[in-house]
Parts: sequence; C-alpha cells; structure tokens
Amino acid sequence: MPAPITIALDAMGGDKAPALVLRGAEIARVRFPDVHFILFGDEAKLRPLIAKRRRLKDRCEVRHAESLIGATDRPAQALRRGGQSSMRRAIDAVAEGEAGGVVSAGNTGALMAMAKHVLKTVRGIHRPAIASFFPTLRGESTMLDLGANIECDADNLVEFAVMGAAFAHTALGIQRPTVGLLNVGVEEVKGNDAVKQAAQILRRANLSFDFYGFVEGNDIAAGTVDVIVTDGFTGNVALKAAEGTAQLYTSFLRAAFRRSWLSKLGYVLARPALKALREQVDPRVYNGAMFVGLNGVVVKSHGGTDAKGFASAIGVAVDMIRGRYSDLIVAECERFNAANQPLPQAAAS
Amino acid sequence: MPAPITIALDAMGGDKAPALVLRGAEIARVRFPDVHFILFGDEAKLRPLIAKRRRLKDRCEVRHAESLIGATDRPAQALRRGGQSSMRRAIDAVAEGEAGGVVSAGNTGALMAMAKHVLKTVRGIHRPAIASFFPTLRGESTMLDLGANIECDADNLVEFAVMGAAFAHTALGIQRPTVGLLNVGVEEVKGNDAVKQAAQILRRANLSFDFYGFVEGNDIAAGTVDVIVTDGFTGNVALKAAEGTAQLYTSFLRAAFRRSWLSKLGYVLARPALKALREQVDPRVYNGAMFVGLNGVVVKSHGGTDAKGFASAIGVAVDMIRGRYSDLIVAECERFNAANQPLPQAAAS
Repeated sequence: MPAPITIALDAMGGDKAPALVLRGAEIARVRFPDVHFILFGDEAKLRPLIAKRRRLKDRCEVRHAESLIGATDRPAQALRRGGQSSMRRAIDAVAEGEAGGVVSAGNTGALMAMAKHVLKTVRGIHRPAIASFFPTLRGESTMLDLGANIECDADNLVEFAVMGAAFAHTALGIQRPTVGLLNVGVEEVKGNDAVKQAAQILRRANLSFDFYGFVEGNDIAAGTVDVIVTDGFTGNVALKAAEGTAQLYTSFLRAAFRRSWLSKLGYVLARPALKALREQVDPRVYNGAMFVGLNGVVVKSHGGTDAKGFASAIGVAVDMIRGRYSDLIVAECERFNAANQPLPQAAAS
Repeated sequence: MPAPITIALDAMGGDKAPALVLRGAEIARVRFPDVHFILFGDEAKLRPLIAKRRRLKDRCEVRHAESLIGATDRPAQALRRGGQSSMRRAIDAVAEGEAGGVVSAGNTGALMAMAKHVLKTVRGIHRPAIASFFPTLRGESTMLDLGANIECDADNLVEFAVMGAAFAHTALGIQRPTVGLLNVGVEEVKGNDAVKQAAQILRRANLSFDFYGFVEGNDIAAGTVDVIVTDGFTGNVALKAAEGTAQLYTSFLRAAFRRSWLSKLGYVLARPALKALREQVDPRVYNGAMFVGLNGVVVKSHGGTDAKGFASAIGVAVDMIRGRYSDLIVAECERFNAANQPLPQAAAS
C-alpha cells in the first residue's frame, strides 16, 4: 500500500472552474484511492459542489481563497497582487509541506512566476522549464521546454536534457532515456550556436542518459528519442503544430466517412477499432505539463480541457510525487556537476 | 494558349536521380503541354532514359554536365568547386534567360548558395527565404521561412511577410492574403524581440495584404491565415513536426483497420472515401518549395519524393513563371518601401 499523497488544487483556474476541477478530482480519486486533495477557492461555490460528489467528500478539504488569477493577468501583476489567490495559496501549500504537489488549469505565466518565487529553482539549475509527454510511433516521448523560456543558450539546453531525462525516467519508467536536441538537420554544422554548443557539451559529458545527437521535427512523432530538448519558442510551436495536424486529420477522416453510404457503413463496422485509435491520440490522456527544475511538483493542466483531461493532469502530479521527482532532479544535477565541469554560468554565479 | 515555358532541370539531384527526374518530367509534360525542359546531367545516362520516354523526347534538350553536387557537400564547397555541376549549370540557364526557372531535388544548402550567387537577391530584400504550401482545414496556406535563415531579425520577418503574400497571391490565387506571425501566444507581450518588433512594423505599415497579428502552432493546420511568417529554425521544425504527426496518424489508422475482421471489412467499404482523404494530405501533392527573394524562379523538390512528387515541384515552377512571380516580388518590394519607411537595415546598406 503506497503512502497517502496530498495534492493542492487551484479550484478556480481554467475555463470551466470550479465545477470541472471537482469533476476531474473525482475521476482521479477513483483512479488513485490513496490521494487526498486540498481545494483552494471560493468556499461558497465549492461547498455545494462537493456535497454533490459522494466519492470526493471524504477525500478533500476546502480552504477559502479570496481572489483568483485571471487568464489575462500578467505574471508580474499576479505576483504582486495575487497573494491571497487560489493559485498562490495552492503553491504555498506545497512550500509549507502540506501538499506533495499542486495542479492548476489557470494562467501559465502566472503559475510559473509564482511557483518560481515561492518554491525556488533547484540549486544548479538556471531556469525551470515546461515538459510534457505525447504519443509516438514507438510509445511515448517527452519534450521540453514548451514555452517557459523563449530564448535559451547552450547551458539552458544542457540543463533541460538533464531534467528531461529525469522526467522520462519518473513519468515513463525508462531506465536510461535517449535524449535528442531538436534542430533543422542532423549534421554537426546545422543549427544555431546554442544547439551546436549544447551538442558539443553533451557529446563529451558523463551522463546518466544516452545523448542521441540532433533530431528533426518529424522525429517528434516518430519517437526517435525518449526526450526532445529545445528552446521554449520552438517547443511550444512544434507541439501545437503537431496538435493542429492531429485535429486536421481527424476532421478530414470524419468528412471521408460521411462521403457515401458505403463509407458510413464502413465507419460503423470499424467503429470499435477507430475508438481505440481515438484513445491513442486523445489529447486529454496527455494533458498535464510538468514544471521541471523547481523544488516541488507543479503541474499545469490545459485551461480548456474536460474532467477526464484534468484527471490526467492530477495523474502526472501523482506520478511525480510517488517517483520523488523533486529529489531525483536535485540528485541528477549534483551528479552532472560532479561528473562534468560545472556549466560556465553556474561557475560564474 | 499560354506562351511556352522552359524549365531547367537538375537531372542528377535527389535520391533516385536521374531516372526519377525524367519520370517526373514526363508526368509534368502531360499536365502542362506548353512546357519544355532543358536537362542538365550525365548525357550518357540521360540519353537512353529519354529514348524510352516517348512523350518526353520531343520536349526536352540534354546538356551534358560533368559533375554533380553530393547530398552532403557543404554549400561553400559546392560554390567553389561545383561550376560544372548539373545543379549550377541549371541555375546558369535561368540567369542567361534560356530557362524561366529551375527545379532541383538536390542538396538544399548548395542550391540556395549557388542560386544566391548566380541570380542575386532582389533589390530591397536582405535574405531570400524558402516557402511552401500545405493543406489546412480552410484550404491551403503557405509558410516561410522553412530553413534558409536560422536566425532572423524583425526586418527579415517583415520582408518574409511581403514575399510570402506575393507567393500566396501567385501560387494560390489569393487577391489579398492574410498574413500571421508565428508566436507562442497571441497577446502583444508574447514572444521574442524579433516577432514583437516585426508585429509593430506590420501593424503600422501600408500593406497590399492584411496583417492578422500573431498566430500559434495550431493555427498552421487550422488555416487561420493564408501566410505564416516565421524564422527558418521554427518554420523548419514546425513543418516537419506536422508531417511527422500526419505519418503517425496514418500509421495508427492503418493499425486500427487491421484490428479485427469487422474493421477490415469496414476499411474495404470506406476505401474510396479514404483514398480521397489520402489525396487531401498527400505530401507529394505539396512537394516543391520555392526560394523566394531571388531574381529568378528556383524550386526545391524533396530529395526522397517519387515521380508524382517531382512533377508537383515542376508545377510550382510553372505557376511561378506563368504568374511572373519574380517581377511581382520586385514590384511589391518597391511598393512597400515607397509606402513605408525603408527598413532600418535597408537604409543603412
């Protein structure tokens, strides 16, 4: 029997909060019987919603939060004025050791700014990143950064590699992950200075993962490596480009099946198999991006997801807490720095 | 009856050259009866191949080229030593006015370097770019740059917008295209300095297209705008990420249909409709990337495409020549610079 886990939920974050957060928590509660929740938000709204959810009632505690962070609030503004917000108080619960991790479907920039401010960045890491996993031809892979760091130098990318490998280890159970640097070609001469220098550092380094070298955009879905490392601009665009293409394909497929009565009949016959396909690429199953490099587990759910998707994000937090990801990151950073020259930035700071 | 068009073909470029180039030319010859070809390559290899292709024989001329550019040759090396290569001689034919444009499935970097050297960049444009089009939920859109410029400043992006709008006009027949800047969010504060500054310039400028503002990765396949503008690193990764996702989906779909005898039967019934779907997303139909910003039409075919794909690349060249794209670019640059402040770089140079 695993030790009980407590997760702080920002009950007011996301398009359909707080109702959706509660429905998601209930699904997660069934999937992870040992999980407890602390819900931060408007008590007057939360109480009646919880009263209706029998399976949730005895597993959650409500803490009133006076305000909430809006979807368009700037991070700096959230930091200054969001002290009593549901998001901030949920993060505080992690800092104070009350909860093992926090899940929010709210404003990404505000969540990152507050989490960095409250939980601090792991010693030896310069910048936290956002990591997520997705389906590929060979199973599942992870990618980072997905948007926390618009511009990155070689050292940032090297740190992302270390954190991403630890994430793949914890989230996907891969003993010794393979890590690739996203580039516009696989030859050594290709790319910008940051990726070329990062590749040089990683090729020479003593690592607890396998550095594969450069990978290209099509390698993401091909599953060529377990971890794709890139800057936050490219990673954000690439992941959304892939999501958009999946939606396009689904839409074209739907139209194809509607084309004639024969194809409609074909759809009916193939429906169970197609349902399995849909589950394979269901974005809700892959919902939940982890903020890596912080002293604590912080998971961002997509703001527009449904209850099933929010439950997946809770699942990511559960995996990270159970796999002691925060300790692993610290150990891996120390290990990397002991086995290799400290990164130039780290030496200077 | 349109005026006859002559296209120079690098007969030795690509994985399966020269046989595939000839098969592609034959397909294009049927599609565009007014097109003539000048084939540059190893005459001893080309002659017997042409003799077998009845429909090609009277429409093509062979020019012997002593060497060829290898797939791994560096651009600088190709420039220095490739003077008698099939690729270089095909480009020379455009410079000398013998051909209206050139198509090659060879080494992209070498093709760009030689084309820039021989044809020169259009006055007022600092850097040529690579543009292509692809299927979306709302028809077809174009994107640039796809890899010619790894790092771009705001002025480069603004020029890409002007050239991309002209490309969408010529290739897709759109009177007044909408243009979006690829970013990690749609709010004004999002992104790096280059995209923020480019957006500022485009918002204030007097344009012959509609500037939409920022778009995100998922907007590519959604067809939110006709033209997506981005740096060559992001564009290359985004396009390949989309291609990889389409392949993943196809592979999952194939596996789904094989799952049971019912789904196999369903596949048989839906096959004609699914064939139409396959054609909608057929990468061969979208093969052919245009090098925009040069004094001449240069089209790069994917090196691994088949004859049908190579014929599509020839089709892009035909459209560009017939639509007088090279003249349009010059006119659009002059128009932009007359209607707006010259770009800072242009003023300085």
